[in-house]
Amino acid sequence: MASHPVAQVTSPAAWAMVEDKFSPYAKDTLAKLIAFVHDEVLPAQNLARAQLPSDPEARWKTVLPVVAELKAKARKLGLWNLFLSKAHYPEFGVPLTNLEYALMAEVLGRGGQMASESVNCSAPDTGNMEVLARYGSPEQQKKWLLPLLNGETRSAFSMTERFVASSDATNIRTTIRQEGNEIVVNGHKWYISGAGDPRCALHLVLGKSDPDNSDRYRQQSIVIVPPNAPGVKVIRPMHVLGYDDAPEGHCEIIYDNVRVPLGNLVLGWGKGFEIIQGRLGPGRIHHCMRSIGVAQYALDLMLQRVTDPAKKTFGKYLYEHGTVVSEIAHSRAEIESARLLVLSAALQIDKVKAKGALKEIGIAKFVVPSMALRVVDRAMQAYGAEGLSQDTPLAHLFATLRTLRIADGPDAVHIQQIGQRELKRAPALAKRTAEIKRREKALFEKHGFKL
Amino acid sequence: MASHPVAQVTSPAAWAMVEDKFSPYAKDTLAKLIAFVHDEVLPAQNLARAQLPSDPEARWKTVLPVVAELKAKARKLGLWNLFLSKAHYPEFGVPLTNLEYALMAEVLGRGGQMASESVNCSAPDTGNMEVLARYGSPEQQKKWLLPLLNGETRSAFSMTERFVASSDATNIRTTIRQEGNEIVVNGHKWYISGAGDPRCALHLVLGKSDPDNSDRYRQQSIVIVPPNAPGVKVIRPMHVLGYDDAPEGHCEIIYDNVRVPLGNLVLGWGKGFEIIQGRLGPGRIHHCMRSIGVAQYALDLMLQRVTDPAKKTFGKYLYEHGTVVSEIAHSRAEIESARLLVLSAALQIDKVKAKGALKEIGIAKFVVPSMALRVVDRAMQAYGAEGLSQDTPLAHLFATLRTLRIADGPDAVHIQQIGQRELKRAPALAKRTAEIKRREKALFEKHGFKL
Amino acid sequence: MASHPVAQVTSPAAWAMVEDKFSPYAKDTLAKLIAFVHDEVLPAQNLARAQLPSDPEARWKTVLPVVAELKAKARKLGLWNLFLSKAHYPEFGVPLTNLEYALMAEVLGRGGQMASESVNCSAPDTGNMEVLARYGSPEQQKKWLLPLLNGETRSAFSMTERFVASSDATNIRTTIRQEGNEIVVNGHKWYISGAGDPRCALHLVLGKSDPDNSDRYRQQSIVIVPPNAPGVKVIRPMHVLGYDDAPEGHCEIIYDNVRVPLGNLVLGWGKGFEIIQGRLGPGRIHHCMRSIGVAQYALDLMLQRVTDPAKKTFGKYLYEHGTVVSEIAHSRAEIESARLLVLSAALQIDKVKAKGALKEIGIAKFVVPSMALRVVDRAMQAYGAEGLSQDTPLAHLFATLRTLRIADGPDAVHIQQIGQRELKRAPALAKRTAEIKRREKALFEKHGFKL
Amino acid sequence: MASHPVAQVTSPAAWAMVEDKFSPYAKDTLAKLIAFVHDEVLPAQNLARAQLPSDPEARWKTVLPVVAELKAKARKLGLWNLFLSKAHYPEFGVPLTNLEYALMAEVLGRGGQMASESVNCSAPDTGNMEVLARYGSPEQQKKWLLPLLNGETRSAFSMTERFVASSDATNIRTTIRQEGNEIVVNGHKWYISGAGDPRCALHLVLGKSDPDNSDRYRQQSIVIVPPNAPGVKVIRPMHVLGYDDAPEGHCEIIYDNVRVPLGNLVLGWGKGFEIIQGRLGPGRIHHCMRSIGVAQYALDLMLQRVTDPAKKTFGKYLYEHGTVVSEIAHSRAEIESARLLVLSAALQIDKVKAKGALKEIGIAKFVVPSMALRVVDRAMQAYGAEGLSQDTPLAHLFATLRTLRIADGPDAVHIQQIGQRELKRAPALAKRTAEIKRREKALFEKHGFKL
Repeated sequence: MASHPVAQVTSPAAWAMVEDKFSPYAKDTLAKLIAFVHDEVLPAQNLARAQLPSDPEARWKTVLPVVAELKAKARKLGLWNLFLSKAHYPEFGVPLTNLEYALMAEVLGRGGQMASESVNCSAPDTGNMEVLARYGSPEQQKKWLLPLLNGETRSAFSMTERFVASSDATNIRTTIRQEGNEIVVNGHKWYISGAGDPRCALHLVLGKSDPDNSDRYRQQSIVIVPPNAPGVKVIRPMHVLGYDDAPEGHCEIIYDNVRVPLGNLVLGWGKGFEIIQGRLGPGRIHHCMRSIGVAQYALDLMLQRVTDPAKKTFGKYLYEHGTVVSEIAHSRAEIESARLLVLSAALQIDKVKAKGALKEIGIAKFVVPSMALRVVDRAMQAYGAEGLSQDTPLAHLFATLRTLRIADGPDAVHIQQIGQRELKRAPALAKRTAEIKRREKALFEKHGFKL
Repeated sequence: MASHPVAQVTSPAAWAMVEDKFSPYAKDTLAKLIAFVHDEVLPAQNLARAQLPSDPEARWKTVLPVVAELKAKARKLGLWNLFLSKAHYPEFGVPLTNLEYALMAEVLGRGGQMASESVNCSAPDTGNMEVLARYGSPEQQKKWLLPLLNGETRSAFSMTERFVASSDATNIRTTIRQEGNEIVVNGHKWYISGAGDPRCALHLVLGKSDPDNSDRYRQQSIVIVPPNAPGVKVIRPMHVLGYDDAPEGHCEIIYDNVRVPLGNLVLGWGKGFEIIQGRLGPGRIHHCMRSIGVAQYALDLMLQRVTDPAKKTFGKYLYEHGTVVSEIAHSRAEIESARLLVLSAALQIDKVKAKGALKEIGIAKFVVPSMALRVVDRAMQAYGAEGLSQDTPLAHLFATLRTLRIADGPDAVHIQQIGQRELKRAPALAKRTAEIKRREKALFEKHGFKL
Repeated sequence: MASHPVAQVTSPAAWAMVEDKFSPYAKDTLAKLIAFVHDEVLPAQNLARAQLPSDPEARWKTVLPVVAELKAKARKLGLWNLFLSKAHYPEFGVPLTNLEYALMAEVLGRGGQMASESVNCSAPDTGNMEVLARYGSPEQQKKWLLPLLNGETRSAFSMTERFVASSDATNIRTTIRQEGNEIVVNGHKWYISGAGDPRCALHLVLGKSDPDNSDRYRQQSIVIVPPNAPGVKVIRPMHVLGYDDAPEGHCEIIYDNVRVPLGNLVLGWGKGFEIIQGRLGPGRIHHCMRSIGVAQYALDLMLQRVTDPAKKTFGKYLYEHGTVVSEIAHSRAEIESARLLVLSAALQIDKVKAKGALKEIGIAKFVVPSMALRVVDRAMQAYGAEGLSQDTPLAHLFATLRTLRIADGPDAVHIQQIGQRELKRAPALAKRTAEIKRREKALFEKHGFKL
Repeated sequence: MASHPVAQVTSPAAWAMVEDKFSPYAKDTLAKLIAFVHDEVLPAQNLARAQLPSDPEARWKTVLPVVAELKAKARKLGLWNLFLSKAHYPEFGVPLTNLEYALMAEVLGRGGQMASESVNCSAPDTGNMEVLARYGSPEQQKKWLLPLLNGETRSAFSMTERFVASSDATNIRTTIRQEGNEIVVNGHKWYISGAGDPRCALHLVLGKSDPDNSDRYRQQSIVIVPPNAPGVKVIRPMHVLGYDDAPEGHCEIIYDNVRVPLGNLVLGWGKGFEIIQGRLGPGRIHHCMRSIGVAQYALDLMLQRVTDPAKKTFGKYLYEHGTVVSEIAHSRAEIESARLLVLSAALQIDKVKAKGALKEIGIAKFVVPSMALRVVDRAMQAYGAEGLSQDTPLAHLFATLRTLRIADGPDAVHIQQIGQRELKRAPALAKRTAEIKRREKALFEKHGFKL
C-alpha cells in the first residue's frame, strides 16, 4: 500500500477510516501541508521567539518577519484559508470538507499557533471571517473581510466581560445604542484574543442593544469597532499561566463612548445571539483537532526523550524506568480514540451541519482538551524541569490547551448538555423495554414458567 | 436520510464513518440481527435463568430449551456463524468482513452470552472453529468442525494451567507424547471455558511434546481430546466473582493418562504455538466489540433508571441529584470513542490481516474492557443494591467484563507491547528532528540571529 | 522501641499518631485480637466454606460449627462486643473508645465477616444492639438484647423496600398500625441482611405509623418482629455480584398482616426516624475501618503473589513486569491516608459525638470503600483469573466492598452533603477576604501605589 | 471547647489528632503565625507584585520593600527560622519539633513564597542553613550561616546540570579540583533556584572531585562559591510554565574556572553525596506541608467564587451547576487525607529521624503535589479564564506545585522506592501465610474435612 504521509504523522488506522472520503485535491493539499509544517514552520519556531522583543512595550508592536515569510510561502503553495469550506461559503471558500480540514488542523496543531497563522487559519480570525462571509454586508466584506482573507489584517471577537458571568449572554452589560446615524458602544471586556496585535483591524463587539426585549436572545447586537476609534482603550494583556501570548494577547479593553457609523452593525439589530451561535460549531472542532496534533507532537517528543542515550540514569534508558512504557501506551490509545472522535464529529458536520452534530461536537469539546493536557503533562514529566521551561514547546502548549477547557464554554457546560441530550433517549428506551417485557411475559406463559 | 436501525442502537456518527464500507448483504443482516436480539433474545433472558436448575449437580447437565429455540430461529433467519469471514475461510465462511462483523458483535453484546450462542458465535467455539477450519485435517473437520458449525456441539480450548504461570507458554507442564499410534496426554488445567457444557464434544489441549527443543516456540503441540475419553476429569467450575457460569463454566480439569488416536494431533508436532497465535487476533476484537455493546446496554439501562418516576427522592428524579448527568455524558463519550477504536481496528484487520493490525488490536484490548467496566459500574450505582443483584443483568455483565482484563493476556501485557511498539518510532522521529534542527540553524543564520 | 504488634499489621506511622490515646487495656486487647485473627480466624476460613452446604436449601439452615468454636474461644479471651463503648452504653459496654475500636475493626477486617462474628461485632447486630441498649424497654432488652449480647441469636434491620426509593424515608410504604393491643405490620422489604440466618431472632422493622403527620420525620415507627411470627415470608436471598452470602443473606421479605404485641414498639410512636439517625454514625466508621483492613490484607496478598517464584514469566518475577511496583506504592499510600482519615473521624466521634463528627464520618464513608475497591482490584489483577475465583478471598471481598458504596446511603449522598457543608464556610471566608482587601488598600496607599 | 485558630484554617479533626503533641510555645507561635499570614502577608501580595519591575533587567536587581518590612515585623514577633529544630541544631535552632513546624508550614503555604521568606523559612535557604549548621566549619558558619540566619543574605544550591541526567549523581560533570591552596570549579548548571536574587551571597556547588573513586558515592564534593567570584556567569532564568519567578529565579549558570579558597570546601573531600542525603529529608516534608496549605487556600478561594452572587448564570449560583459540589467534597477529602499523611510523616521524623521515616516521606512526596495540583486545577476552572491569569494567585501556585513533581526527585523515583520498600515485607508475610496454612491443615483434619 503506497501510503499517504498523513498515515505517518497521525495513524494508519485512523487514515484508513477516512481515506476514501478524501478528494484527490484534499489528499494533495494535506501532503503539501505536512511538508510545509515540518520543513518550514517547525524550523522557524525558535527564530520567531528570538525575533519577539522581551521589552514589555515593544513586544506588542512587532510583526515577526519570519511569520510574514511563512505566510508568503504558504500562500504560494495554495495552503491558504483551508478552514473555509466552499460548500458553506461558495463565494470565498476552498473545496475542502470539514472532515478534510479536520485532519489538516491536526497537522497544523503540531506547529503551534504559528502554523495556523502561516496558512491564515488562526483563531479568532477564522470565526470572524466566517461571520463576515455569512452575515456581513457587501461593504463590510470589502472593507474588513477581504483583507482578512488576504492575511493583511487580523481581528478580535469582543464578547467576554469583566465583573460579569458573561457566559450567560443575558448578563452582558456592554451597551450598543444608536445615536443619530452613529452607534455608541460602552463596555468593559477582557480575554479578547488577538486585540494586542498591531495588525488588528477590527473588533466584533457584542453588546446589549435592546435589554428589555422579552425574548432574551434578541437583546444583543454585534457591531464592528476599529481599534483606532476614539475611546477604545486596550488596558493590558491577561496572562495564561504566566504567558502573555504577545503579540496577539488576550486583552482587557474598555470601550468608552466609542462611536462608529451605522453601517458597522452586523446583520441587524438584535441579531447578536444568532451570530454567536452560527460562529461556534466548526470552530470548536478546529480547536479540538489542533489539540490532537499537539498531543501527538508531545508524544513524539516524549518518545525521543525517553530513548535519548544522554538521559540514561543508573545505566538504563529513561523508558526502562518506572511506568514510562505504560504512560506511552496510554497516551497513544487516548490520542487515537480522541482523533477518531473528532474525525467522526467533523464528518457529522459535513453530513448534517453543525446544528445536527451538536452532540458529537460537544463530546469532542470536553474530551479532547483534557486528553491532550494529560498527554502533554506526561511528556513534560519525562523532560523533567526542562519540560516546564522555555526550552521545549511543551509548557506553552500546556498553557494553551488549559484555556480550551474554558474557552467557548467551560467543560462543565458541554458535559451537562451532552448528559441532558442523552436523557432524551430515555422515553424511546422505556418503550422498547416495555415491548421486551411484553414478549417476556408471553414466553414465560408459553413455556409454563411463572414470572 | 432513511437511517439504518444500527444508528439507533449504536450511534449515528459511528455508523456514518463506516456505512459506505458495508455491503448491502451486511446491512441487511445487521438489521435482521438487531431485530432478533431485541425481539427474541432479550425477552428470553429471564426465562433462560428460570430454566437453569439451582441444584449444584443438575445445572451442569442442562441444555436450556429456550436457547435451542433461539438457535433454530436464528439459523432460519440466516443469522449464523457470522464471525467466520469468507475472505479468510472460503470453504466455510459467510460473506462478511471483520468490520461488518464488529458492529454485529456489538449488537450481540447487548444480548449477553445467550445472543452469541443463538447465532453460533460464542467463544470459545468461534476460535476453535477457526482453528479447525484453518489447520484441521479433512477427517478432523468432518468429525468435529461440521457439528460445531451446525451448532450441534460445543467445545473448549484447554490452555491455562494450575500451579503454573502459563501465560508464558514455555512454563506449560502438560505433556503430550506419542506412544505407538496413540497420543498420551497428562496435565492439570483450569479456567477451561465451556468444558462444563453437556454438549461439549472436544477439548483442544495444548501441551509440551518436545520440551527440549532449542526453539521455545516449537516445544508445544495441540491435540483433540474428547471429554468422554478415559482419564479426563472435570474437577469443578472456577467461579468468577460468585458466578459459576453454568452450564458452560470455566472448569478445572485433570488429564490423567488420556489416550487419543494419532489422528487427533492438529496440524503437526511442534505446531502448538503457531496455532495459538493464529487463533487470537480477531477473537480479541470480538470480545471488545461485544463489550461495547454491553457498555451501551448498561448506559441505556441507566438512562431508564434515572428517569424513572418511581425512583424519585425528595421530589427529584435521580438524574437531578449529584453527578448523574455528568456520569452519563462521560459514559456516552467513552463508549463512542472506544467504539470507533474497535471499528478502526477491525478495518485494519480487513486491510492488513490481524498480524498487521497488532497495535490497533492491542490498544482495543486494554482500553475497552476497563471502559466498559466503568460504564457498567456507574449503571450499577444508579440502580443501588438492585444493580448488584440477580434482578438486573448488570452485576453478571460486570463479572464477565472483569475477566476480559485477564483473558487472552492481562491488560499489562498489552500495555507493555503497545508502549514498546511506540518506542520503535523513536529513531524516525529523531531523524526528523535532526532535519528540523538543520533547517533551524540555516534560518537563524539567514536572519542574522544567534542560536 | 518495643513496638506494639499493631504497627506491623497496620503501619508504624499511623500507630505513632494514636498510640498515646490508647489505654493499656485497649493495647492489650488489640494485641490479643491480632493474635486471634491470625492464629484462629484466618486458618478457619476455608473450613467454614467447606462446612457450608452447596445445596440451595440446606445452606440457609446451617450454623457453622467452626464459627461456634471461634466464638467460644473469643469470649474466653475477652474479645467480645468490642464495638459497644462503655462511655456511651455504661450498662452493657466495654471500656473502649471509638478510636480504640477503630483500629480493632481494621484488624477484624483482615479476617472477613467471620472475624467480626467471632467477637460478636458483626453488622447488622452491632447497630441493633446499640438501638436496643439505647432505646429498648427493660423487657425488650431482656428478651432480645441479652441473647444478642451473648451471641446466642442474630438479628436484622428491616428498612429498605422493594419498588420504592426508600432512601427517602418519606417514600416508605410499609404500614405499622395499632389494632387493639396488637401492632399490625404490612410491607415488602428487601436487602435485609442477616434475615436468612437460622439464628435470627428479631427484625427491627421500619414502617409508617402516622403517614399524614405534617412533620415528615415523625411519620415512622420501628417495631420488633420475630421471624417466626405468622405472615413473615422470607422470599429469597438477593445476590451481590453472584454471591448469596449464606447463611446470613440479604433477603427479600414480605410482612403480610404480621401481628405483634404492643410491647414490641421501640421507643414510642413516631420515633422511627430518630432511631435510624442514632443508629448510623459510628457504624459507618466500623464499615470503613474494616474496609481498610480488607485493603491492607489485599495488598499483603498481592505482595506475596508478585514475589512468588512459581509465578515468574519470561525469567522475571511478576513485580518486575509492567507497573506492578507503582501499583503497590499507590495502594500503600492510599491505604495509609484512608486509615488516618478514619482514625481521625473515630477520634472526633469520641470528642464531639457522632453528630459533631458528621463531616469526618461522611468523608470516610465516600472515600474508603472506593479506595479499598481499587486496592483489591489491583490485587485481583495480580492473581489473574485465580483472583476472581473462589480460591482467594479477593473476589468476595470485592463484592462486599462494592455494596458499601451503596449501603447506609450511596456515595453520591455523602459527597453532596460534604460539599454542602463546605459551602457553609464561604461567608466566613468572604469576611476574611474583605478584611484582607481592606488592609491591602491601606498598604497600597501607604506605599504610594495605585491598586 | 475553646479551639485553637489552627482548627479553622486547617481542620478540627486533624488538629485533634496532634494537639496534645504540641507544646504551649508551639501553640502560641502557631497562633501568631496564622494572624501574621492573614493580617500582614496576604494583604501585601499584590503590592509586592506591583513593586516588582516589569523591565526584563530591573526585575532581577530589586529587593521588594514590602518584603523587607514583613521580615522586620515577623522577627519582632518571634516568627523566625521556625524550620530549624533545636533538637537537631541545638546551637542555632528554635524549640519546635518537625510535627509542630509541619502545621506552621501549612499556614505559610497559604501565603505563598512571600510568607515563607518573611519568616526566613524559604527554600533553598532552609536546606542550606541546615547544611552549614550541621557540616560547616566555624569560619563558614560565621561568614555565611549567620547572615542567612539573620535574613540578610540569600543562597543557592547548585546541583542540577544542563545536558546531563544529573539525578544520577554519578553523571555529574562539574569538576572541583584543588590547585595549590585554591579550589577550581568548572561546570554548567541550571535550575539553580535563588541564584537570581541580588542578595544571593553563596552557591553551594556540587561537583566531582574524585571521579575515579571506586565508591561512586565518594566521588563528589561540595564547595561554597560566592556569586561575585570571577568566572561565575548567570546566563538566564529558566521559566516555569511562563513564569520567571523574579527576583529569585531558577537560573542557568556557568562556572568557568572559578577559584575559591580551600576553606570553602564543606565538610571535606568526597563528602558531597553525604551532604546531599542529609539535606533532603525534612525539606521534602516542608514542601509537602506548604502544598497542603496551597491546596486548602485554593479550595477556600473556590468556595468564595462558587457562592459569589455576581457570578450567577441562568439564575443559579455557580455551585448549583454541574459537578461543583462534588468537586468541593473531593477536594476537601483529598486535602484532609494528605494533611494527615504529612503530619504523620513529620511525627515519624521526630521519632526516628528522617532516615527512619523514608517511607512516610516518600509517600508524602509523590502524593501531595499531585493532590494539590488537582485541587488548584478545580479552583482555576471555577474561576474561568480569570483563574489562569495574573488576577488570582491560582495560576502561579499551579506552576509552582507542578515543579514539585520533579524537584528533589521526580514522582516516579519516589513511587518506585516506596513500591520496592513494600516488596521487602513479602518474606515476613509469606512466613505468616505458611503458619496459617499449617493451622488450617490441622483444623481440617480435626474436623474431618479434606483440604
